[in-house]
Amino acid sequence: MWRELLPVGRDFGSGGYRRFAWTGADADCRAWFRAAAGARGLAYEVDRNGNQWAWLGDPAAGDAVVTGSHLDSVPDGGAFDGPLGVVSAFAALDGLRARAARPRRPLAVVNFADEEGARFGVACAGSRLTTGQLAPERARELRDADGISLARAMERAGHDPEALGPDPERLGRVGVFVELHIEQGRRLDLSGHPVGVASAIWPHGRWRFDFHGEANHAGTTGLEDRRDPMLTYAHTVLAARKRARLAGALATFGKVAVEPGGVNAIASLVRGWLDSRAPDEATLRAVVAEIERTAAERGARDGVDVRVTRESFTPVTEFHGGLRDRVAGLLGGAPVLPTGAGHDAGVLSAAVPAAMLFVRNPTGVSHSPAESAREDDCLAGVTALTDTLEALACR
Amino acid sequence: MWRELLPVGRDFGSGGYRRFAWTGADADCRAWFRAAAGARGLAYEVDRNGNQWAWLGDPAAGDAVVTGSHLDSVPDGGAFDGPLGVVSAFAALDGLRARAARPRRPLAVVNFADEEGARFGVACAGSRLTTGQLAPERARELRDADGISLARAMERAGHDPEALGPDPERLGRVGVFVELHIEQGRRLDLSGHPVGVASAIWPHGRWRFDFHGEANHAGTTGLEDRRDPMLTYAHTVLAARKRARLAGALATFGKVAVEPGGVNAIASLVRGWLDSRAPDEATLRAVVAEIERTAAERGARDGVDVRVTRESFTPVTEFHGGLRDRVAGLLGGAPVLPTGAGHDAGVLSAAVPAAMLFVRNPTGVSHSPAESAREDDCLAGVTALTDTLEALACR
Repeated sequence: MWRELLPVGRDFGSGGYRRFAWTGADADCRAWFRAAAGARGLAYEVDRNGNQWAWLGDPAAGDAVVTGSHLDSVPDGGAFDGPLGVVSAFAALDGLRARAARPRRPLAVVNFADEEGARFGVACAGSRLTTGQLAPERARELRDADGISLARAMERAGHDPEALGPDPERLGRVGVFVELHIEQGRRLDLSGHPVGVASAIWPHGRWRFDFHGEANHAGTTGLEDRRDPMLTYAHTVLAARKRARLAGALATFGKVAVEPGGVNAIASLVRGWLDSRAPDEATLRAVVAEIERTAAERGARDGVDVRVTRESFTPVTEFHGGLRDRVAGLLGGAPVLPTGAGHDAGVLSAAVPAAMLFVRNPTGVSHSPAESAREDDCLAGVTALTDTLEALACR
Repeated sequence: MWRELLPVGRDFGSGGYRRFAWTGADADCRAWFRAAAGARGLAYEVDRNGNQWAWLGDPAAGDAVVTGSHLDSVPDGGAFDGPLGVVSAFAALDGLRARAARPRRPLAVVNFADEEGARFGVACAGSRLTTGQLAPERARELRDADGISLARAMERAGHDPEALGPDPERLGRVGVFVELHIEQGRRLDLSGHPVGVASAIWPHGRWRFDFHGEANHAGTTGLEDRRDPMLTYAHTVLAARKRARLAGALATFGKVAVEPGGVNAIASLVRGWLDSRAPDEATLRAVVAEIERTAAERGARDGVDVRVTRESFTPVTEFHGGLRDRVAGLLGGAPVLPTGAGHDAGVLSAAVPAAMLFVRNPTGVSHSPAESAREDDCLAGVTALTDTLEALACR
């Protein structure tokens, strides 16, 4: 199963994955999902938001135990972030059959569309649409770097963008959601455990900083005549790091776009995206406010106008306490740990009890071709997920 | 003439021009040049390096008076940088006819290919190839942002890249070269003159700084576990500005590329291009060495490996003193001024006597859609060029 997925959307240069929502690579991943469902005799469906479902038992019976993750990736992402959860979900259903377990509740595997937001800028678009956390009008208007709207991209991929929207009926069938995911840090490695359980997701958000200066010739314009937004951007990058450090938070500029972008042209516009996260919302808001203030101050010195747009914000997510403790107990006292990364399970947890299992990541590296997990740890993850599904669905 | 060229390669969003070498917009500009030559009964030819020539009189007679500039642009460039020199060249030939001037030497208008280097990174590629300052093997291997080589791009545009190389025979026909260009600064505006004459071109170069860090998840990787090259880049941008200011030089980062470039991914690689210029070579070398040193020091703190590649370097260019003084005298004591920008006239001056005329730029803005010149100043430029050609070719 794992081997079939490995070549899809892989960049031969970097070794990383480029499985962006509603592209050809994404379609290949989705075809794989459909085939995996078919091979197991599971009932396959695509919901109005493009999420794929594979059902064991009657969905209409309700109170289903659902597991899964996503198949899309960040640019040059690793092989595990997302696919490990979907592959493990199918493997866990296989495990239940091998144990001759008899489910009393329907079970389903789900692949949430566009979790990474790599193409259209909004993470967890599929699950957010389903839970009503992302308005369909806004989703349809999201655009990729080539100016193609999400609506157009879905249409090209054979989906009706007019159908997008909240899906309380489908969500009402879900009794509990469990997502298995590779850990994106080294907490499990440091604790010596192959599998852990999530406690909470830090609040996090994305802010777009637009630094507006004036394009000019780099070889003929005196320094004092310049309004160079690259300077303001550079100052802001360093300020963001400092503010995050002082507050025990995270702040990252990992994407930047420059206009006109010529070697011998002073930029007219530098656009930088800030990703920031913190243990609590007050800290996060304070950190971002300080970064904005510093950018505006420096901008005033540089003759650069700074505009900040919040592109997304996710409050802290505390996973369902009873479910978390039950799962941790099932797994013989697996460590319970927080994460800074958003997940579909976090989005779902606003509507249904949700839990997450993490599989050890020996280097902590994620969102990179170097992301890795040991095979025995992945198998331990499948066993843990099988145990969890069995306890939830079969007892 | 001017109006026909205006719409070619214009971006409707920015109002700027995107006339990159060997693209469709470039082909349109070149077709315009050919038509302008044909309409005047001039003998049209394209040389082995893709430069276009339009001859009045017999090229083989030698000692020709050649004028012209380029038609390509930087990204979102202005309408004047390049085209003003070519349009004025044709207009000056029209002016000589209107005066019934009788040339004793052949005259030619030239459009040098790929002056800006916006697509393949090497400025003045056409004139450098012709004078032997750019090796054809190196030129053929230059690649644009999509990985397309210059050889392939020329081929697609119907030119034989195998023909590229020094052209001493054609160069030997040129007795003198005069390039008219919009000023890229405010010296003429401050002095109150519509037209000036170039004294020298500052030495300048381009250096590519590759900052190698490690891609990782922006939401889960502790600050102390990061090797974030964006920090080193930001520090280097600010250091470059400071070093240039202290030395009376120019230093600009106007182009940057990030891998993987995801909002929630720490960069693995930030690539920034430094454009630097100074009144003399010793100052320029010292400034760039200081910037490199600062980048390496900060890189060591950030766990980031910094590699610097010099992509181009042009020594100081002093224009031919006798020719410069003669032209300035002809124009009734026009001001003589240096420039920080490279030009085909500077490249040619290594092989033949060359001079430059500058037309007043009221804002000094260049390499931007806001680049402008007053119509009466442009007409004064044509008159000055006509006077110059008449003095050089007809007396």
